[in-house]
Amino acid sequence: MQTIRVETPSAKYDVVAGSGLIESLAPRIERAAGRLPRRVFVLTSAPIWALWNEAFLASFSDPPVALFLEPGEKFKTLASVERLLQQMAQAGGDRGSLLIAFGGGIVGDVGGFLAAIYMRGIPYVQVPTTFLSQVDSSVGGKTGVNLPEGKNLVGSFHHPRAVFADIGVLGTLPDRELRAGLMESVKAGIIRDRALVRFMEEHADEVLGRDPKALEKVIAASIRMKAGVVNLDERENGLRMILNFGHTVGHALEQATAYKLLLHGEAVGWGMVAALYLARARGTISPKQFDRLENLVHLYGPLPALKLKAAMVAAATGGDKKNVGGVRRFVLPVGIGDAGVVEDVTPAELEAGVGYMLAKAAEQQV
Amino acid sequence: MQTIRVETPSAKYDVVAGSGLIESLAPRIERAAGRLPRRVFVLTSAPIWALWNEAFLASFSDPPVALFLEPGEKFKTLASVERLLQQMAQAGGDRGSLLIAFGGGIVGDVGGFLAAIYMRGIPYVQVPTTFLSQVDSSVGGKTGVNLPEGKNLVGSFHHPRAVFADIGVLGTLPDRELRAGLMESVKAGIIRDRALVRFMEEHADEVLGRDPKALEKVIAASIRMKAGVVNLDERENGLRMILNFGHTVGHALEQATAYKLLLHGEAVGWGMVAALYLARARGTISPKQFDRLENLVHLYGPLPALKLKAAMVAAATGGDKKNVGGVRRFVLPVGIGDAGVVEDVTPAELEAGVGYMLAKAAEQQV
Repeated sequence: MQTIRVETPSAKYDVVAGSGLIESLAPRIERAAGRLPRRVFVLTSAPIWALWNEAFLASFSDPPVALFLEPGEKFKTLASVERLLQQMAQAGGDRGSLLIAFGGGIVGDVGGFLAAIYMRGIPYVQVPTTFLSQVDSSVGGKTGVNLPEGKNLVGSFHHPRAVFADIGVLGTLPDRELRAGLMESVKAGIIRDRALVRFMEEHADEVLGRDPKALEKVIAASIRMKAGVVNLDERENGLRMILNFGHTVGHALEQATAYKLLLHGEAVGWGMVAALYLARARGTISPKQFDRLENLVHLYGPLPALKLKAAMVAAATGGDKKNVGGVRRFVLPVGIGDAGVVEDVTPAELEAGVGYMLAKAAEQQV
Repeated sequence: MQTIRVETPSAKYDVVAGSGLIESLAPRIERAAGRLPRRVFVLTSAPIWALWNEAFLASFSDPPVALFLEPGEKFKTLASVERLLQQMAQAGGDRGSLLIAFGGGIVGDVGGFLAAIYMRGIPYVQVPTTFLSQVDSSVGGKTGVNLPEGKNLVGSFHHPRAVFADIGVLGTLPDRELRAGLMESVKAGIIRDRALVRFMEEHADEVLGRDPKALEKVIAASIRMKAGVVNLDERENGLRMILNFGHTVGHALEQATAYKLLLHGEAVGWGMVAALYLARARGTISPKQFDRLENLVHLYGPLPALKLKAAMVAAATGGDKKNVGGVRRFVLPVGIGDAGVVEDVTPAELEAGVGYMLAKAAEQQV
């Protein structure tokens, strides 16, 4: 079990990664957030709840009120938020109530947003159940939902009181989701943790075989990287931008495939390939480093095949919400374990990177 | 012109009260919030915009994108919020965009909430156009909308970069709204500003006759009171509770009359009468102080007649969102210019206060 401390100007809390956390949640939450209030809510999805409700409820003397979000990006909407807020009000939720978000990234984002806006903010705890949400979305305080006009266009910064990332729940995660989630760990290593890159290169079999020790090591290192960045830049004014490595093109790919073909981590995987190409062209990484890092991405693949036009994907990068005042920001690795943000990527450079990536993606056998 | 400084742990900004502000907004906003961004939005209502759009636009070289909220509490919903957020996205709003809330309390609450959650928060400025919103809702950072289950159950704390309260726009405000708004100034005096109580007693004719100097004095004093309280207790954990003087019963009256019969300030006016009765019964104010303060409420009336049952109104006080863990909190004046919060008001005391108030309200000629 590892505990990582998040300390930002607006919040301080622990992220705990390890086994057996689900079964002992109630006392852990009380240690982190104080005595459980009269009304505790748990936002979850029916499939997760069916698998884990007994273990989850084991440590509570009064069972929390369960709220359900249908699985899938298409339910990450303000309409779902309104329905859930009404259920909270009907069940007697007040300003002292606590919410537990128990599920994947969407449950975490929506649960955090419910907690952010119910009666102008109540405390909440994240219990992420997917690899991706454990290493990424549950840490950092970003919450929100989608609009028809784009993903995550609505939300709040609202930090949880604690995060409990239970390795045990990953046992039921489909292999494809685990691999996609691991792309965020690959990202973590490339931009900020050279030792993690090496570990993931050397222990791919154990990690993909779900060896608990290997998983805990990768998850804890990924969380530590993210917490370190969030601690220094809570509101994404500067350093936190580097977490978007692979995401500019990744988001464009998700958009170009209508969020149906690719898991988020897979889109980021291909996005990293495009960004690595750009970095090699600019010389911020050497050809040898390029080969090593591109191999690492594929080691945790296979990434799905793609048939898209480079110009279309490049154009789709313009709508990213991280752009302010029309400037296209791009994160490029600098060697292995460091990264920087550039704002002067030309359309030609971008198309070259996307073109390289799409050529690779067209060859893919999946 | 008077400038009042708000300084909380999370925000520092000026509230400016005076004449001629609408016509000179753009440079004022630039002084407060920095150079105007590429995309500026103004949320307003059609009636306000019809009256004031020329004056409003006079100082902008690029006109802001106007967004409209239909007037009335029934449009203070998440559905309106979603529609407006979509319009912002479609018009190219980004993280650097600025929103100006130009209207009454509902426009301010919804506008602030849009700014709080659009791309996880953009800056905004309040330009309140009603007396009530100038002295109350535009200061303090509370934003939000209603649920079918209750008012203001959803929202955020999100402070504006500046507030411009233009006395000039009050010229077109209906008399009933002015009088209702003045109840918040009466409240301000009773709980925190003895000199304001005296000024309002002695200058009722000038204030109600909309003498600009008298109005500016009352508005600035009310804002100063509220800013002082918010500065000491941003998140309503303690002192800020006293701002709810008159509001526990006031909210119950609004609920019992389905938000149709009473303006908010009128409900607060009657709520103060009930709370004053309770305070006299407990001895936190003397019988003489009671008479003086009850007279002050009626001086800025007339308050509408009511025909309600005391038990029903008393029961409706249970659902107030300021209650945590089932405790019914109540603000009582202590002498003139001070107030405290009590949690031990018995049902019998509450019914007696409500009963007294309803007897007075039944006699009313309006």
